[in-house]
Amino acid sequence: MSLVKAFLRLTGLRTERQRVIVLGSGWAGYTVARQLDSRKYQAVVVSPRSYFAFTPLLASTSVGTLEFRTALEPVRSRRSDVSYFQGWADAVDFKNKTVTIEEAVDDPRMGLAPTGDRHVVDSKEQQPPRRRDDGKKGQLFDLSYDKLIVSVGCYSQTFGTPGVKENALFLKDVGDARKIRNRLLACFEAAALPTTSEEMKRILLNFAIVGGGPTGIEFSAELHDIIKEDLAKVYPELIQYHKVTVYDVATKVLPMFDEKLAQYAMDTFTREGISIKTSHHVQELRKGLPQNVESEREHDCFTLKFKDEGDVGVGMVVWSTGLMQNPFVAQALRDVPHLSEPALKVVKPAVQGSGELRWKIKKDLKSGSVFTDDRLRLKVTADGEGKDKAEGVLTDVYALGDCAILEGTAYPATAQVASQKAEWLAKRLNKDDFERYQFSWKNLGVMAYIGNWKALLQGGGGWGNISGRAAWIIWRGAYLTKSVSLRNKILIPTYWLINWLFGRDINRF
Amino acid sequence: MSLVKAFLRLTGLRTERQRVIVLGSGWAGYTVARQLDSRKYQAVVVSPRSYFAFTPLLASTSVGTLEFRTALEPVRSRRSDVSYFQGWADAVDFKNKTVTIEEAVDDPRMGLAPTGDRHVVDSKEQQPPRRRDDGKKGQLFDLSYDKLIVSVGCYSQTFGTPGVKENALFLKDVGDARKIRNRLLACFEAAALPTTSEEMKRILLNFAIVGGGPTGIEFSAELHDIIKEDLAKVYPELIQYHKVTVYDVATKVLPMFDEKLAQYAMDTFTREGISIKTSHHVQELRKGLPQNVESEREHDCFTLKFKDEGDVGVGMVVWSTGLMQNPFVAQALRDVPHLSEPALKVVKPAVQGSGELRWKIKKDLKSGSVFTDDRLRLKVTADGEGKDKAEGVLTDVYALGDCAILEGTAYPATAQVASQKAEWLAKRLNKDDFERYQFSWKNLGVMAYIGNWKALLQGGGGWGNISGRAAWIIWRGAYLTKSVSLRNKILIPTYWLINWLFGRDINRF
Repeated sequence: MSLVKAFLRLTGLRTERQRVIVLGSGWAGYTVARQLDSRKYQAVVVSPRSYFAFTPLLASTSVGTLEFRTALEPVRSRRSDVSYFQGWADAVDFKNKTVTIEEAVDDPRMGLAPTGDRHVVDSKEQQPPRRRDDGKKGQLFDLSYDKLIVSVGCYSQTFGTPGVKENALFLKDVGDARKIRNRLLACFEAAALPTTSEEMKRILLNFAIVGGGPTGIEFSAELHDIIKEDLAKVYPELIQYHKVTVYDVATKVLPMFDEKLAQYAMDTFTREGISIKTSHHVQELRKGLPQNVESEREHDCFTLKFKDEGDVGVGMVVWSTGLMQNPFVAQALRDVPHLSEPALKVVKPAVQGSGELRWKIKKDLKSGSVFTDDRLRLKVTADGEGKDKAEGVLTDVYALGDCAILEGTAYPATAQVASQKAEWLAKRLNKDDFERYQFSWKNLGVMAYIGNWKALLQGGGGWGNISGRAAWIIWRGAYLTKSVSLRNKILIPTYWLINWLFGRDINRF
Repeated sequence: MSLVKAFLRLTGLRTERQRVIVLGSGWAGYTVARQLDSRKYQAVVVSPRSYFAFTPLLASTSVGTLEFRTALEPVRSRRSDVSYFQGWADAVDFKNKTVTIEEAVDDPRMGLAPTGDRHVVDSKEQQPPRRRDDGKKGQLFDLSYDKLIVSVGCYSQTFGTPGVKENALFLKDVGDARKIRNRLLACFEAAALPTTSEEMKRILLNFAIVGGGPTGIEFSAELHDIIKEDLAKVYPELIQYHKVTVYDVATKVLPMFDEKLAQYAMDTFTREGISIKTSHHVQELRKGLPQNVESEREHDCFTLKFKDEGDVGVGMVVWSTGLMQNPFVAQALRDVPHLSEPALKVVKPAVQGSGELRWKIKKDLKSGSVFTDDRLRLKVTADGEGKDKAEGVLTDVYALGDCAILEGTAYPATAQVASQKAEWLAKRLNKDDFERYQFSWKNLGVMAYIGNWKALLQGGGGWGNISGRAAWIIWRGAYLTKSVSLRNKILIPTYWLINWLFGRDINRF
């Protein structure tokens, strides 16, 4: 945009097109922004992340089955008319229709899964190359909107377990994948030193995955693959020391799959030597050796503390235990000022004679997610003097992705639901036919890679289940088709071929 | 190697093969290690860097013309019998034939150009994700050798210019290339924010290259390419603010090229809008805005202070002003104990009646590099009581690469000389026919990419000179042929094609 346009943006004067501000560049935000009709709408994406991460391929990139960039699409593209500002949404003024943005170009946590207050200075382990001198906020600026789409997603859930934020690795963004890849290779390199004791080798090559959902399982599978297919050849003398364990508090893994498929996964894992430990509670993750180990600490390592088992020394912990509500949703999406038509449409009026209404955004008490109606519009409630609550929707504010729940449904917080909502919303906005359609999710099934060229496939809509090699072929095919740009549609199979021919790249930098 | 072998390594007991310890994994070390006959020799590479970086392609990777890994080859490979330990050589005991190694698996500066004492805690700008809690040394351990090959290379020269180590970016290793790529894109992203003033845009998009040698020139050319071919399309409104300047203290750039070719390069640069400022002395590089700029600092930026021009605000400084002697060479390669035949071969005996000889390693006073004879053996001198100096060579210690000079020659410190020496040495060691051959460098000419699909080519051995598009085709062809692995021979042209079709990848993470 020209400087003039930028100025217009700031002051909120109108250009001919309606401006749609999209908060977030994930499955929901990135999809809706690039599908908006650029003749009708000026799409402005605001996100701390200047790219879209194709999350299903992150596990592959974390071990080098694919190169990192094959899972990324830039929000700015010469082929799209989407504008972009790198920043965090800070506050929303629903009355004057402006969003306050905190710029985040120098954000030290960029590319890493958000786990908590980003203004708290991180422990050394997480300090990135160009971190800020302090945890201070970036500059703030306002953007005005005609329509606002909230798709800020969620943070990674650590249940406040001590030391997890600081010492665990996550797998939500490409920066996480890169840290995992480097750490994995560092553990083998340290174990290969002639000074490293046997005991230390066992600790360095003990890899723990906490969380038995699809992400945790797929990462364990990819980890198993690189160890068996590549590292075993490069570090033959070390393989005897390695161990991969998946921990979960629940009694089973892969809860979203049928019993039979989940069992097939567990059997495959057991056969491949990956142990799955259910009903395990992590109490702490700290740097250093377990107490029962005498030998002086030779290399960076970590200790997982369990309720029952006590201390377990590990070289790396990958943490994937689900989602935590986004602070922006909790703090910025609360009370709304006294809005009236057309900004706020009353669906269920308050009882007669009730005094002034205090509208606030309706949320799910358990998850803290915002509720939307079946047009994905943000829901509001008001408690007047009357007993029963008035209800309404904000006509120009939409919410989708992991931070929003279509009230009355139990759609899972998955990329599939997010992108379906995004496509539906973009179509409705382009055609302006909200009155005629409601959103409903079409379950296309779930897939999971379980290692050694095998996968699980649970078809939606009575498509039945497949497991093993055939499912793996469909798994790869699906992600290749779904991958966004032609560039990556070429690079992904190229890397699959190259790595099959020559092995994964084990360069660490 | 098995644990037992590792133990043998440590205690120095002999295996059937002779052990050759190679210090360094650059052009010299990597080449000689992988060409040693594994039936005769057990090659053990010791280097802080677990990979070989194909330096001529680093400039391309720093702007995304190629992906980083296409310029890397792992020292450990399932296809070679080369052993590897990640560490810095710390000391050599020439009498007992052992090297003391400092392990460097967790070295925070891995992948970055070494510029000074690695045990000094870096400034925030350079803190990598998993930096050590302090600048403490890693664990030390000894390795015994039958033959020692010193190819530790050089550090980057900053002439002690204040702030350069902390605030400049270098281009000697792949970690440097990655920092440059991220910084370049961060400058554009920051300039694109609606809050960024015009003045700040000019500073953020002012890119300075210090040093007019091939590295500086090739980087400027690649930088110009990505700006003109890609960033101009993604940030059309910002291109008016960008500026690329090459500074050099000398009166001309590309001193190793003929006047005519250097002039052609300068003309091309001028036509493309890259300004070259010769006879410029940098006095300081500090963080923050120039003094003459009022506006409060909005984003990270830097100020270059020149003797004549004074302060210049810049978004990024890439520093490439040549080589500084490696501290290991200065500290560990000095005096040698009272060696005798066969470890030390006296070439020029001391005068009669001279007392005990104090041998020390012969060095070039100007550069501090070690001298070798034409068999690449380390030279030693001794001053006895007699006037004239005794001279000798260490029969089992070889030196090559940027840290060594073949006494009496003026071979340049280039990859070409280093790899020719390495190939020659490997062949001699494999055939054990040192007496019959001496090393001499065959000048194959010099090449440099100068941007916009043009290059310079100065043929060696009367091959004459070429410049422009034809030279560029030869330039690419040469590097494709020279690139080491088949994997990269496939990936490199793939990326050339992909980026030509779709543009460079501008994802920053």
